[in-house]
Amino acid sequence: MKDFDFGIVGLGVMGRNLLLNMADHGFSVAGLDLDAEKAASLESEADDKHTVKGTTNAKEFVQLIKKPRAIMLLVPAGKPVDAVIKSLLPYLEEGDIVVDGGNSYFEDTNRRVDELAAQNIHYFGMGISGGEKGARFGPSMMPGGDENSYERLRPIFEAIAAKVNGEPCVTYLGRGSAGNYVKMVHNGIEYAIMQLIAETYDVLKRGFEFEDDELQNMFASWNESELQSYLIEITAAILKKDDEITGKRLVGLISDTAKAKGTGKWTSQNAMEIQAPVPSIDLAVNMRDISKYKEERTQASKTYAWHGDSENISKESLMANFKDAFYFGMLSIYAQGMAQLTIASKEFDYGLNLEEVTKIWRGGCIIRAAVLEDFRKAYKANPKLPNLLLDENLASKLNVHQKAMRSVVKIGIDKGIPMAVYGTALTYFDAYRSETLPTNLIQAQRDYFGAHKYERIDKEGIFHTEWEE
Amino acid sequence: MKDFDFGIVGLGVMGRNLLLNMADHGFSVAGLDLDAEKAASLESEADDKHTVKGTTNAKEFVQLIKKPRAIMLLVPAGKPVDAVIKSLLPYLEEGDIVVDGGNSYFEDTNRRVDELAAQNIHYFGMGISGGEKGARFGPSMMPGGDENSYERLRPIFEAIAAKVNGEPCVTYLGRGSAGNYVKMVHNGIEYAIMQLIAETYDVLKRGFEFEDDELQNMFASWNESELQSYLIEITAAILKKDDEITGKRLVGLISDTAKAKGTGKWTSQNAMEIQAPVPSIDLAVNMRDISKYKEERTQASKTYAWHGDSENISKESLMANFKDAFYFGMLSIYAQGMAQLTIASKEFDYGLNLEEVTKIWRGGCIIRAAVLEDFRKAYKANPKLPNLLLDENLASKLNVHQKAMRSVVKIGIDKGIPMAVYGTALTYFDAYRSETLPTNLIQAQRDYFGAHKYERIDKEGIFHTEWEE
Repeated sequence: MKDFDFGIVGLGVMGRNLLLNMADHGFSVAGLDLDAEKAASLESEADDKHTVKGTTNAKEFVQLIKKPRAIMLLVPAGKPVDAVIKSLLPYLEEGDIVVDGGNSYFEDTNRRVDELAAQNIHYFGMGISGGEKGARFGPSMMPGGDENSYERLRPIFEAIAAKVNGEPCVTYLGRGSAGNYVKMVHNGIEYAIMQLIAETYDVLKRGFEFEDDELQNMFASWNESELQSYLIEITAAILKKDDEITGKRLVGLISDTAKAKGTGKWTSQNAMEIQAPVPSIDLAVNMRDISKYKEERTQASKTYAWHGDSENISKESLMANFKDAFYFGMLSIYAQGMAQLTIASKEFDYGLNLEEVTKIWRGGCIIRAAVLEDFRKAYKANPKLPNLLLDENLASKLNVHQKAMRSVVKIGIDKGIPMAVYGTALTYFDAYRSETLPTNLIQAQRDYFGAHKYERIDKEGIFHTEWEE
Repeated sequence: MKDFDFGIVGLGVMGRNLLLNMADHGFSVAGLDLDAEKAASLESEADDKHTVKGTTNAKEFVQLIKKPRAIMLLVPAGKPVDAVIKSLLPYLEEGDIVVDGGNSYFEDTNRRVDELAAQNIHYFGMGISGGEKGARFGPSMMPGGDENSYERLRPIFEAIAAKVNGEPCVTYLGRGSAGNYVKMVHNGIEYAIMQLIAETYDVLKRGFEFEDDELQNMFASWNESELQSYLIEITAAILKKDDEITGKRLVGLISDTAKAKGTGKWTSQNAMEIQAPVPSIDLAVNMRDISKYKEERTQASKTYAWHGDSENISKESLMANFKDAFYFGMLSIYAQGMAQLTIASKEFDYGLNLEEVTKIWRGGCIIRAAVLEDFRKAYKANPKLPNLLLDENLASKLNVHQKAMRSVVKIGIDKGIPMAVYGTALTYFDAYRSETLPTNLIQAQRDYFGAHKYERIDKEGIFHTEWEE
């Protein structure tokens, strides 16, 4: 048979699962992998009524697919992507579409878009979230590229995506590397929310001797509230998992040295580049980094003692405060990330529609949460909303919860337990709602030592002062 | 005359002042600038007993200098540096030395070192701190490059550098871009300390209605204490400066929208790249960025009201707490920056000697401060000290001041005034002194949704769990 609907390159877990997901929805899919075993086993994995075919030959693979061809790459970011493109290119024709479904750095995607455009081939960068299971049964997908070409991809992507109220968690996002950028910020938000959960666990466990069962119950109940979200759901599941060998709670046996694949770091680095403040994402990256220095931390723990002034707070009232504070912190994190997208969309001319972004994040992806629906409504009501903190409905909730947020951050300080993301989520809020900041003094200092000049509030112009007498 | 001791390219304020500084110390110096007026006016500015010469001709300029030539560039970072190198290159000879004295990005310096090494020309990157006045009468200088070639530069640089106890604030720092990297981190620390001062001013003024005179007196008295430092000194001077036209205090008339030249941003971005946590520098960058969004902040200030629970604290006790907390915050900032240098030195094979770095920062540069002498002693006692927080003498002071630090950060939270650098300086301290962090939960989450695997505390290996039941 020829005229396959779609092609996938890279038959690792993600590629294979997406391919089988497409087959389940009635699409014929060809797969390419250099590993002959992976290519061959494909057909046995799909059942009889599905049309799938695996090959190790790039030419055969390309020729299997109907024109204009739609091919998606699921290979590691970086050089492997360029290598695969190079291997396909001799067989591709004008109008064909190549979709990079990995976590590629957005600037690499921009380069590839330009390179392939020279041959009239449309290159898409597409973030995919949802992990292995999402790929198999419904991910959230963030494609960016040429808008007209997206029509060729739309039926397949909409069929395989996660659904929320019948609406697929995929939509055309914008030009060039828009899809990679949105996915990058998605991951930055993910880092910060994971750290927010970890800090909650840390203060309650280390500071107030909560048992894992109590924490598990708390997170499970939060998941039935306005805090409902995938990351809280899996946290509750993790906290009740026992180690098969020792019978102890597994989470307590896991090393506290974090790993990271770098997308959170990219989010922070680029946010600084475009002057979009995302302090809570920055601190989440920092906390993973500091976790690496276990030996130094152990030594410092002996040098610095602090016995927190333990106020008498009941566990019930603690949990109630943390619940409100978590909501506050989570909103501040999303507000920072969405504001980064707003600024990036202008900077890179993506033409992002943030209502669509929040809509496709409601299902399938790692940061899916009940609040996304509130964000979607906020952007629907005002597509030009510069920051979620300026939405009146969200503001009314934050105003109710800010007292709890302040009390929780102070608890961390009293206990001597670092609340990096809670703390900066509040700092961001307080800075954002400050009509005046003390930056005038910084401008004066810069003019004093470096003659960098300053602007004034009472008249136009650029000024320099000879500060020394 | 020929056989000039030294050449300077770029006769703007910095280049001219360094040239005159050298001439004052008896060195003959040639200057090159494309601007004929700048080149010509040079000779009239130096008095008769000095040998200086300006020219607009690159060939003439190079031939004026004795071999092996020593030439320093004081031109804007980026393309102008490459353009100047290109213009000089036809006339340079084997063994000549080119020193870039601007704020070049360290990776650009690495590239140039390699490019010029191909012609046996030695390229140095050298950070210079101290502003215009420092350049004229004694800067702190941070050179990196080929160690043997440094002997050609040493007498001139030691003569013109700032002196502390007779010791010059310049020394050979390390290989390649070591000098630029050290200067970059110097600037990151500078950003964070400026923000720490600004937060002190903000909370006391906005939160407790301190007058500028009270703040001026406070900073002036701090400058007579263990907090003695250039940035506090100029802050006191700024706070008493009146506007010549309105007669009002000038600082209050300056716009609170900050500018930045990007070196603080580079520090944060590269710290993330090499996984060196510097949260307080990150937040200082963030706060300059957030200051840009004046219109949004004004709108948000109306949406979010917070009337801080005003405890009764006397101004005296407030100032005493802030003084101790400032010391604590400042130490945490330096500790973060110095740890970044430690990590970078390994990462980039600079071979940095941190005792030397702290020694040359004691004078001339913007972050000079009395505490630098304590840091120098700490590194002298233990050249392999991984973090200043692990020095016993500094630890004993921090242990005394940590209570004040906690109380001050809580005051900011109660008042609703953002203390970004104070807050993260404490977070860093608390994270660094935490033997265990809740990163085990983050590792479990990563394994749950992405099969990223984890390590255990009770046995070697890499593990994956099927978390779902």
